[in-house]
Parts: sequence; C-alpha cells; structure tokens
Amino acid sequence: MKLQHVIESQQFTLPMLVELFELADQMDRILIRGGTQDYNNKIMASLFYEHSTRTRFSFESAMHRLGGNILATERANTFSSVAAGETLEDTIRVVGHYADVIVLRHNEVGGARRAAAVSSTPIVNAGDGKGGQHPTQALLDLYTIYKGVKTIEGVKVALVGNLTDGRTVRSLAYLLGKFERVKIYFIAPHSFQIKQDILDYLTKHNVWFTLESDLKKTLPEVDVVYSTRIEPELLTQRGERLETISQYFIDDTLLKLLPSHALVMHPLPRLHEISPSIDSDPRAAYFKQTRNGVLIRMALLVSVLG
Amino acid sequence: MKLQHVIESQQFTLPMLVELFELADQMDRILIRGGTQDYNNKIMASLFYEHSTRTRFSFESAMHRLGGNILATERANTFSSVAAGETLEDTIRVVGHYADVIVLRHNEVGGARRAAAVSSTPIVNAGDGKGGQHPTQALLDLYTIYKGVKTIEGVKVALVGNLTDGRTVRSLAYLLGKFERVKIYFIAPHSFQIKQDILDYLTKHNVWFTLESDLKKTLPEVDVVYSTRIEPELLTQRGERLETISQYFIDDTLLKLLPSHALVMHPLPRLHEISPSIDSDPRAAYFKQTRNGVLIRMALLVSVLG
Amino acid sequence: MKLQHVIESQQFTLPMLVELFELADQMDRILIRGGTQDYNNKIMASLFYEHSTRTRFSFESAMHRLGGNILATERANTFSSVAAGETLEDTIRVVGHYADVIVLRHNEVGGARRAAAVSSTPIVNAGDGKGGQHPTQALLDLYTIYKGVKTIEGVKVALVGNLTDGRTVRSLAYLLGKFERVKIYFIAPHSFQIKQDILDYLTKHNVWFTLESDLKKTLPEVDVVYSTRIEPELLTQRGERLETISQYFIDDTLLKLLPSHALVMHPLPRLHEISPSIDSDPRAAYFKQTRNGVLIRMALLVSVLG
Repeated sequence: MKLQHVIESQQFTLPMLVELFELADQMDRILIRGGTQDYNNKIMASLFYEHSTRTRFSFESAMHRLGGNILATERANTFSSVAAGETLEDTIRVVGHYADVIVLRHNEVGGARRAAAVSSTPIVNAGDGKGGQHPTQALLDLYTIYKGVKTIEGVKVALVGNLTDGRTVRSLAYLLGKFERVKIYFIAPHSFQIKQDILDYLTKHNVWFTLESDLKKTLPEVDVVYSTRIEPELLTQRGERLETISQYFIDDTLLKLLPSHALVMHPLPRLHEISPSIDSDPRAAYFKQTRNGVLIRMALLVSVLG
Repeated sequence: MKLQHVIESQQFTLPMLVELFELADQMDRILIRGGTQDYNNKIMASLFYEHSTRTRFSFESAMHRLGGNILATERANTFSSVAAGETLEDTIRVVGHYADVIVLRHNEVGGARRAAAVSSTPIVNAGDGKGGQHPTQALLDLYTIYKGVKTIEGVKVALVGNLTDGRTVRSLAYLLGKFERVKIYFIAPHSFQIKQDILDYLTKHNVWFTLESDLKKTLPEVDVVYSTRIEPELLTQRGERLETISQYFIDDTLLKLLPSHALVMHPLPRLHEISPSIDSDPRAAYFKQTRNGVLIRMALLVSVLG
Repeated sequence: MKLQHVIESQQFTLPMLVELFELADQMDRILIRGGTQDYNNKIMASLFYEHSTRTRFSFESAMHRLGGNILATERANTFSSVAAGETLEDTIRVVGHYADVIVLRHNEVGGARRAAAVSSTPIVNAGDGKGGQHPTQALLDLYTIYKGVKTIEGVKVALVGNLTDGRTVRSLAYLLGKFERVKIYFIAPHSFQIKQDILDYLTKHNVWFTLESDLKKTLPEVDVVYSTRIEPELLTQRGERLETISQYFIDDTLLKLLPSHALVMHPLPRLHEISPSIDSDPRAAYFKQTRNGVLIRMALLVSVLG
C-alpha cells in the first residue's frame, strides 16, 4: 500500500483498512525481533503546534523502530517564522526540504489538508483542531478491536461518556460504520449524546445503533466497551447531576457483567472512568491500545515512505 | 578541507569558498542517493540560547543525512547551570564532553568566538546576537547564486529592503566583495540603506556598487534580486511612507522586468515582499535556498568533523 | 551485570560497584574507538519533570554512543495527560510501550521508586525531588575518585561547602562508607554541616570522619577535595558572615597546599568555589567528572538493557 498523505479517516476504504492492519501485524513481528534499520536514511519531522507529548512519542517511537531519524519541535507556533506571520503553506514547504515525512499537529481544523495541498513531502495528520480529525487514533482503536475480537464484522461496541465532544468516539463510529453487521450502543447522559451528523451517516449506511443512558444493562451484550471522560465541570454546566458519572465508572462490579471475551478500551489518560483494580484483567485493553498505536504508526510511515 | 571552527564569514578565503561549494555539490549527490551512515558514531549538540527552529532543523537535518546523532535544546538559557550563573566557557567545556561538534546560537555578539576560544570540540556559529554573524546563512546564499547563475565572478546582485539592520544582506555583501567584477545594487528607502562600514569595505576592495531607491529600474540589469523585509512599524518610526513598501513587492508585473536567467532570493520567512503567485516561476529561488542550506551545513559539518 | 532498575545508591553493593566501574572502563575503550552501534534498535525515553539539560544531555550522549535512539521531553509536567491528572504510574506504563528504558527526573521524592513498582521497562533515576536521590551523580563521583586515585579503599576525602542540603555530597558520603579505611573530612560553616543521619550511618559502619570548618588545615592531608556551592543568600539567612565563603575558594594559593596526586572535584556549575586559573592543573578533575558521567551512564544503560 502506497499512501501519499494521511489526512482523515474517510480516505481509508475497507480493503485499505484490511491491508493496513495486515501491515501493522507485520510491524508487530518486526518489533518483536527488535525493529529494523531499513529506514535509517529517512527523516521524520514532528511539527507540533499544540502539545501532545504522548502522540509525538508514539510517532517518534514508530520512526525509531524503523531505524529512522527525528526532527522535533513541541512549539511550532513559536517558530520564529510563524511568529513573524509566515503561512502554514510556506512553513510546510521549508520543512519539506529538511524531512521525508512531516507529522503535523495543527491547532486549526483543516490544517493538515491545507498542508497536504502544497506539500510534495508526505503529511501525516496527528490531530487538527478541537473539532477536526485525529485519524491515527481512530485507526489504532479499530486495529485494537480487530486484534482483540479477531473480527470487526458483526462486532457490538458500546461507546460511553462524552460522545458530543469526543473526537475519538466520533471518528471510531465513523470507521465502524464501514463494516458489515456492526452494532453501536451510544451510552451517555442526555446532554453528552452523539450528534445527529454521525447518526445520519450510520442510518444512510444501514448501521444498527441505539442511544442509551444505562451502561449496566448494555454490558452483557457487547464485545467492546469504549469509555471516555466526562469532565465534572461540563456535567454541571449542562445541568446533569454529578452522580450520573459514577454510573459509568468501570470497576470490578461492572466488569463482572461484561462477557469474558470482551474488551475494555479507553483513549487515555483515564481519571475516574476506569478503576486501576481491573488493570490486570485480560479484558483491560487500554494499554494495549498504546502499543497498537506504535504498530499502526509504523505501518502508516512505511506506507507513505514507500 | 579541515576546519577547526566556523565562526564568521571573514574566515573563508576565495579558494576555501570554492572548495566548500564543491563539497556541497558532493553532498547533493550523497543526498540524492539517500544520505550516508559514515558519521553514525558522531554527535552534534544544538545549543540554542535563542529560538530559531528553522536554523536548528536545517543543521539537524544535515547531521541526520550524514548518519549522525543529535543532542538538542531550544532553551539553553534555562540550562539550570546557566540560570545559576555558569559562564558560557564552562557550559561549552561541559557540552564538549557530550558531543563531537557544537552548533551554537548565542544571544550575544561574539558568543561563538568566546566559545571557540576555550573549546577543543568544534564550534559552528548558528547566529550570535542581533548585530553579530550568521555565517552559514551567508554561505548558503552565496552557494545559491553559484549554483543558479553558474558563476559568482561578474555577477550583478540587487540587495533590496531593510539593508541597515539585515544581518543577512550585510554578510552577503561582504562575501560577494571577495569575487572579481561583482556589481552590487543597494536598493532601499533612504532610512533603510546599507551602512557606511560595508561601503568602505567595498570601496577598499574596488567593488562596484550603487545606492538606489527604485527597484523597477534596476531589475532588467541584474542576475539576482535578493529581497528582505522592511517591518511596517519601522517604516513609520523612521518617517518613511507606508506606500514605499509596495514598490518593493515582487509580483508577476515586476517579475516580467527580470531577465529569464535571473534569480529571486529571500532569506524567508516572507510576508509582503514576494507574491506566492510567482512561486512556480523557475527564477523563484527562495525554497532552493532552504535545500542549499542543508547541503552547505552538511559540507561544514564534514569539514569540522574530518 | 544485569540490573532491573537504577533507583538509589543503596542498591549497589561493593562487588556491584567494582563490576560497574570495570564496565565503565570498558565503555571508555569503546568511546575512544568511536562508540558502538550495538544498541541501534533500542530506544531511551528522557522523561524530565524538571529541567536538567546537563543530566539529560549526559544520558542522551551515553545512549547515542551505544548507537541507541532517544525520545525526549524537557517538560513532562506539561504532558497533556499529566496536566489532565494522570497518575505517574499510568504515564510510566504508557511510555513503557514507546521505549526500552526510561530515564526519569521527577519532582517528588520517591518518584523513581513509584515508577519502578509498576514498570516492566527499566527505570533509571535521574534525580527525584530536592531531598531525594541522584544515584548516577554519586556513582560518577565515586568512579572519578576510583580512576584518579587508583583506589577507593583508604582514600581521604574532604567534602566542602553546603553539606546540609547538598544531595550530591550526602550520596557520596553514603557510598564512600562502603569501602575499607576511608576517611571523610566534612568541612563547612556550622550552619551548613552534614546532618546527623549520615554521621549515624558512618558511625554504625565504623567509618572515620571529622567535622571541621578550616579547609586550609585539611588540604595537605587529603587525596580528594570535593567542593560544593554555598549560596550567598543562604549564608546571611543562617546568620553566617559572607566572608566565610572566601575561606573555601580554591585558587592557586590553596592549591599549593594540596598533595600533587590529589583531585579537586565539583559537581558543576561552579561560580565562586573554584578559580578558573587552576583549570589546567592536572589535579582539576571537575571536567573529567563530566566525561566520566557519560561512561557511568553508558555502563548503567548496558546493565539495564542487557
């Protein structure tokens, strides 16, 4: 698979996803053998206009596992040139002469697309803006389901927490909709439910879904429970009761309701969504997501570097 | 060519410049073949007391293309030791035990020279102070002329914009003065013209020059037009009219006046000096300067690392 | 020697110290030959919750000399996840999927121990909290004595300056106490003398020591004088006279009193403790400490990476 840029989840068709996941499996075998030096003449620039040390480390780890080199800045917005008013387009063309691939975290929706429009160097979107895309997170989530449940077709997934604002769950719902016989349970207090645009998309593609507020009732039915945070301050702002949050706290009691083959996922960091007491349960998949993130990013880097 | 340190433009004689450019050409061929691993046991420390992500990336890219390794700090001034009052000399001796070459961006004029005086590890000056030196920028500019016009002897160069304060144009004028039959056109509003010290130097070395304020008239005569920014706030401060700036804006109309073999150069970032509409014109050389910067820095690193 | 984690000086027995120093000697030979690429598939994460560019550079230089790769952050406390309230334990588990060894500089005493408790990836403590441990500094100090004096048994060491608060001298006193027939001279103004806990430890292990305030008298007797800074503002705060400090200023006059085989050491940065005029004296060992720090850290990395 040769990709020119990685900009948004929508660019991946079903056959591309399958091919990407096979490539990630291959990266897993390479990683177990200690990585490769095949890309030791390649340079990846981490161009971060916003802090996200975790995402940056994940990409940089992936590049190093391939033998490659890194140019990094955590403060692209203090680039003297950016401060001087340089356009994103000019910055990208300059950095394109320093690196073979640019991993871009931009602070504006559509930043990655603008960059790709002028760049002969591959752009990989590492998140653009609050309401924008973060495709590599969505891909690693889907890959974790694929590896953990062995299939995505027919999978039953509960998405839990702040579904209104969560970029992660919105993208995942979008990608899940591409597979056959998937069932999605959106579980959230009323003022945190998933937005209509995603529901319209799922309806159009004949994807089964339901909107719930009761996690307990749903747990026995699903293969995956994907938890995300509701900030307490948002709860009160939107007129929900603080106690609501405790219903979504996954601890040993709630875990008993979940089938033995199922997965508990979370994009991390977690605070009061998942009890550390269940970390050693084989169903706890949130740290596996971290590892799978490196594999997916290795696969994407290989796909754009050729 | 073996260099001990790279501190200022003045240290390069004409034969050294020719040798450096031939080495840079060789680096170009290495880069096209994918770089080398010849320096994979070498470490370059980027010791930046001021932000300059672009210059840092250019050096780090050069070092990676040679196979080498990087220690980087964008905030050398918050080095706990520097905050504690450590002298630059002590810091340099310490870092000299961590690296094989130190790329130093210091905030004081003469910083690089002070560092070199105590350092057995090579120092490369990546800019020292506002009125100080930035020799690698001047060298990459000269190299871009050499590659683009095929010769430097007899070249006719228009230097445009803020010539009073621009470190870049001052250094370039200095280096150009070393070559035979060069003609330099200093084009700027009165309060932004080149300072007398440079004119004295050129007079002493029998270099032809003229001081102009009209760019249009000069364009048909030159091989290179090198544009730099005049900050609008400085214009009003110095009693010039804001409209003056528009005379120096290089767009399709002005480009028509320039010979077909000529180059448009700019140290970047550009704001209102050059229209993006001319970016695809073969004469637009400002992004080529970026690439040439990597080649020149590879050549300099090779020269100091041996 | 296979180490799981490097957390505190106390974990090193006498035979382990001997083995570590032999390994560091071996690293010296490797460094002279230009380093190795043996660890080119390994990744070290520099996770610094506090600035310490010097310590970070030393570790990163060591890792590069082994051929390895680096993930670095100088601002782990602005990790978006940490800002969001993530526990150190979760952060460590995440970073453990990105790297093969984590060098941790934490802002709380016991941070490294907490990290090691949950980490299957080796943790190396690069300093934790003001009153905490900085074991690699203590090890490089001891190694410098071992290399400079040829033995540690029977060595006579003057520890000078702020002995109350200095993490460095406290750890070094602790390690010295493990060797036979060592003599320790604690030389400080009354309100900066070593604390009782260290004296109790030395008494218990039958280590000879004395408390002095006169450096001049002691110099002729010792093999090592280890100087540390007393901040002038602390002097007045604690009711000592500012002139006291000048008694501890090691210059040419004081140096004459020191045996010709002895060492002058300092953890750096130095300000008014040691005159630059003695830098070229063969007894000046403070910059050698810097180099030995790289060797000790190479040896420790090899020991945890296996």
